[in-house]
Amino acid sequence: MILEGIVTTLDEMNRVNVAPMGPIVDESMSTLLLRPFTSSTTYRNLKKHGSGVFHVTDDVLLLARSAINDPGLHPETSAAKHVHGAVLRSACRWYEFQVEQLDDTGPRTRIDARVVHVGRHRDFFGFNRAKHAVLEAAILATRLHLLDRDDVLRQYAALRVPVEKTAGPDEQVAFELLERHVAEHGRTVS
Amino acid sequence: MILEGIVTTLDEMNRVNVAPMGPIVDESMSTLLLRPFTSSTTYRNLKKHGSGVFHVTDDVLLLARSAINDPGLHPETSAAKHVHGAVLRSACRWYEFQVEQLDDTGPRTRIDARVVHVGRHRDFFGFNRAKHAVLEAAILATRLHLLDRDDVLRQYAALRVPVEKTAGPDEQVAFELLERHVAEHGRTVS
Repeated sequence: MILEGIVTTLDEMNRVNVAPMGPIVDESMSTLLLRPFTSSTTYRNLKKHGSGVFHVTDDVLLLARSAINDPGLHPETSAAKHVHGAVLRSACRWYEFQVEQLDDTGPRTRIDARVVHVGRHRDFFGFNRAKHAVLEAAILATRLHLLDRDDVLRQYAALRVPVEKTAGPDEQVAFELLERHVAEHGRTVS
Repeated sequence: MILEGIVTTLDEMNRVNVAPMGPIVDESMSTLLLRPFTSSTTYRNLKKHGSGVFHVTDDVLLLARSAINDPGLHPETSAAKHVHGAVLRSACRWYEFQVEQLDDTGPRTRIDARVVHVGRHRDFFGFNRAKHAVLEAAILATRLHLLDRDDVLRQYAALRVPVEKTAGPDEQVAFELLERHVAEHGRTVS
């Protein structure tokens, strides 16, 4: 199964990088297969330090902000317990991991990681259509270099329906942030 | 916020009714606003007994089967602790509630309920695009009397994409079940 969440890694200055990611997980959540692009900070940090933290979270505002690399994003974190890494305060659960194998022969890497510690802050909210619409919109926002802006905006128009019907304030803000980002940074693919 | 889950109620023979439902919840999850149709078993049971159990669950196969009233559906349950009701074994968390106010003047009722006990079996998986696609498909399946079959099937074709990309075996089975149901029970709205 693919589980969409957030990976934090640290760079050589111990700055926290926050990136949305959908690793393939096994049922016991003991291993993660991560596939960051070689152009990403997550890849560079994992290659250098070999450890990070994967978070399960329903905080879609944080997810949206990390998807568009919001420069003002400095989420509250605490030190990971068993690896060199940072734990997001707003996460539901976290999985501290160590890289076991890293294949970076292609632009999309394959990084096998072993979970060495699991922690838990709170329950995941559950199914909410607005939260999921923000997640889908955030995933699209990370792919603007591959997608046509008008096509993305058409998909956003459809995603806006569940947002209007079922969102709380954070989901509203997150969706508007993503809409602005696509309008400003999307491009026409002919 | 609207939280999509499953409500169980008991009839006068203590038979368990299982229905997908998206109540409006407050942040503390201390109250639920349920809106079942007056034609539903959930409404009749709540009107009669005044109590039930709302479940947060990521078990989308159960959700899909309850959405189409699968006659073979007899999920494992245990007795609720504080109300006359049944707790689904496969749920993540459950909220035993008592009806405080019931307005059935329209076809869609408004039932205010107070949560009197919260229980917990396990963690909610987290964001998975296939699970959510099954949820969306299940919601559409409960509205076949209002929707055009071809329009529903077009939406199913789009939902099939994340199912194929990110589903586990249960999500595949659930989606195929819903597809068959729509093909058999959908109708043309002119």
